[in-house]
Amino acid sequence: MGFELTKEYLDEVFDAIDRKDIVWFEQHLFDLHDADIADLIDELDEQQAAYIYALLDDEQQADVLTELDEDTRENLISNFSSKEIAEQVENLDSDDAADIIGELPQKQIEEVIAHISDDLAAEEIVDLLNYDEDTAGGLMQKEFIQAKLDWPVNRCIVELRRQAEEVEKVYTIYVIDDMNKLVGFLSLKRLLFASPTTKISDLYQDKNIISVKTSDDDEFVARIMEKYDLVSVPVIDLQGKLVGRITIDDVVDVIIEEAEKDLQLASGISEKIESSSSVWRISRARMPWLLIGLLGGILGAQVISGFEGGISKIPALAFFIPLITAMGGNVGVQSSAIVVQSLARGNDQFGSILKKIGKESLVALINGLLLSVIVFGFAYVFDSKTLGLVVSTSLFTVILFAAVFGTLIPLLLDRYKIDPALATGPFITTLNDVLGLFIYLTIGILMYGI
Amino acid sequence: MGFELTKEYLDEVFDAIDRKDIVWFEQHLFDLHDADIADLIDELDEQQAAYIYALLDDEQQADVLTELDEDTRENLISNFSSKEIAEQVENLDSDDAADIIGELPQKQIEEVIAHISDDLAAEEIVDLLNYDEDTAGGLMQKEFIQAKLDWPVNRCIVELRRQAEEVEKVYTIYVIDDMNKLVGFLSLKRLLFASPTTKISDLYQDKNIISVKTSDDDEFVARIMEKYDLVSVPVIDLQGKLVGRITIDDVVDVIIEEAEKDLQLASGISEKIESSSSVWRISRARMPWLLIGLLGGILGAQVISGFEGGISKIPALAFFIPLITAMGGNVGVQSSAIVVQSLARGNDQFGSILKKIGKESLVALINGLLLSVIVFGFAYVFDSKTLGLVVSTSLFTVILFAAVFGTLIPLLLDRYKIDPALATGPFITTLNDVLGLFIYLTIGILMYGI
Repeated sequence: MGFELTKEYLDEVFDAIDRKDIVWFEQHLFDLHDADIADLIDELDEQQAAYIYALLDDEQQADVLTELDEDTRENLISNFSSKEIAEQVENLDSDDAADIIGELPQKQIEEVIAHISDDLAAEEIVDLLNYDEDTAGGLMQKEFIQAKLDWPVNRCIVELRRQAEEVEKVYTIYVIDDMNKLVGFLSLKRLLFASPTTKISDLYQDKNIISVKTSDDDEFVARIMEKYDLVSVPVIDLQGKLVGRITIDDVVDVIIEEAEKDLQLASGISEKIESSSSVWRISRARMPWLLIGLLGGILGAQVISGFEGGISKIPALAFFIPLITAMGGNVGVQSSAIVVQSLARGNDQFGSILKKIGKESLVALINGLLLSVIVFGFAYVFDSKTLGLVVSTSLFTVILFAAVFGTLIPLLLDRYKIDPALATGPFITTLNDVLGLFIYLTIGILMYGI
Repeated sequence: MGFELTKEYLDEVFDAIDRKDIVWFEQHLFDLHDADIADLIDELDEQQAAYIYALLDDEQQADVLTELDEDTRENLISNFSSKEIAEQVENLDSDDAADIIGELPQKQIEEVIAHISDDLAAEEIVDLLNYDEDTAGGLMQKEFIQAKLDWPVNRCIVELRRQAEEVEKVYTIYVIDDMNKLVGFLSLKRLLFASPTTKISDLYQDKNIISVKTSDDDEFVARIMEKYDLVSVPVIDLQGKLVGRITIDDVVDVIIEEAEKDLQLASGISEKIESSSSVWRISRARMPWLLIGLLGGILGAQVISGFEGGISKIPALAFFIPLITAMGGNVGVQSSAIVVQSLARGNDQFGSILKKIGKESLVALINGLLLSVIVFGFAYVFDSKTLGLVVSTSLFTVILFAAVFGTLIPLLLDRYKIDPALATGPFITTLNDVLGLFIYLTIGILMYGI
């Protein structure tokens, strides 16, 4: 691995920009991979970024543009005329071009498209802009190679050469019928080793054609490509016509983004943010969850105040409030995390809800028993046998409830088409807090006979 | 998309197995994709699985074997002799073969390898078994195409044909020098459109060669392939010699497993488990985190008992205990999640620790102020101005502390080479619980002047 973006390299870049030392950049920048140049530009301020970007040649500019962080790209592009943007995106694959144009204001989108000199390219981009970015249509590109059933091999090879610019990324040739419907595929290998006059219809494979529809969810596309180990997948429209192709690199990005989103939801963060996002944006993304937590705390305060008499008689009851709420939250999150993951992988065709809850209850039974024994011992020594009994009985009950809720809630959310990952966040912890308090204090006043 | 594993299909399979209806399987099973057959077998009991597996032809058997869940595969293979296993893995790519053989007991590994008829294949597998499964060496396969610098194009094409079985998966030809060192690469496109006598040395690209070392961590490999949008990456040894290749499908699995592991750690689950794992295994995986939570609760009980006098005088102090602990936990997890994600993406070359803590403190300041005002209003109306002041001041303080700890702890864990994802779990919540209680009750007795 060649390049690593070090503090030292960045300092040299700053110096070279100050000196306007083009020779330095020729020696130390131009040979870097586009992704590395983009990483570097992401670290610069707006003027520095514009300076370096201007040094690159047309093709490198376009490739770097797609690799930049969204914020950096927006800043950079804001200095370009619509004509300049059009010139840059013409060097890109249709999906990357559509992604960049799609980020512009509506009025500028039309201007940029009007400036694209290649009519076919413009048409493809307009088509791609129609799709929701979270669908297969939003992920697909128009660069793919298709062959008709009745073509001979040599015509297919001519076609391959014609689209030579794209061949580096050809993994499979898609075979279509007269109506442009996808009927099968052909590997490069079979094509290259066949005689020139063989018909495609005698060569192609029609078994196990895996395709996705333009309207399919991007997570579904990711699951399909992962399951069948695909590097590209054809996209068809409602009529079964071949309209595009999705390559694995875009799907890897989807997988990573989904994973980050799930982890953020589980951690109580509601928007996609990064550690480089602004303070205001980070605050806003976290606020909804904190408000849920606050509301839970306020409800908890009301529950406890309902037992005020009991607590003033036996203040020791208050000692174990945090233990009960914490354990309820922990168990609930554990149970929901497993359910959320198995839902995310689409593994759940056969798991009936009752079976899952039964299993989680068993796990809760085992762990609950063990933990209750430990906590009984502690509370006994620490205070009294009665408190030991109160705390251990309530802990056991709370763990059971938390496990059942933790399992049930993501399943219910999923059934009503709400992202089940919501359940792993502060939501379930808060619910279990309130419920746990109620169980604990009720058992407390019953056992103490207050 | 053709196939979906429905309850109805599964019932038909059960029936067909009972009837031993081979014709049904010919019509409804054999044409399915290997991954779908594997999904089906994963749902069957041991005898049913063995029955269906035996119906498949040799090649399909091998492909299905790699797609099965580890547990199912283990059960299935336990019925095979070493010779039978050897016959099956011979149909596989070297990395898949090594993965399956690596799961066997040490004694059987040697037997299976002795039964592999192709000496070269056996040697490759033995070589792959040497590498840790979490490294590039453990991910790589021996199937790749290399060309020497001084070869002409036609020799290279002969080589391609010779390895025709693998050509479907050839994305790039790697170019090596006399010492077998990787010096560059060649796309299929350039090879196919070049004249037969052109030397590889005149065709190949030596700019931006991206490779990984056998000892590189699998997460590093995933990051590289994602960053540079690669479908395959060459693997070199310590001397720079080309020894293997990693394809994107294996890396997608790494990315998904890592994401699941991070989410499980954040949810307090310490081993890789699935909703299909046994009750005992699930219980065991969760226990360590619950014990940490319990310990935190016990410490919390001790902190509160230290303030017993205060609470018996002002029982209302107990009302807001859950609010304080819950909010400290929530804020801590939010802060640590962002740090963990940016560490996971290796985005942290320039972020100094102080800068990060400063930013998190600012976010905490904004959110803390807002939440404190809300909670002051509530506690004032609910009880008294004094309690309002106590709760809001402590909430504000706890949020600030939780943000700083939430940022600091994953950074510290990372510095000491411990997985920072540990910090997003119950660990940080527990710490913040105890700290929060102490802050709250101290402020309480100070303000009430007890």
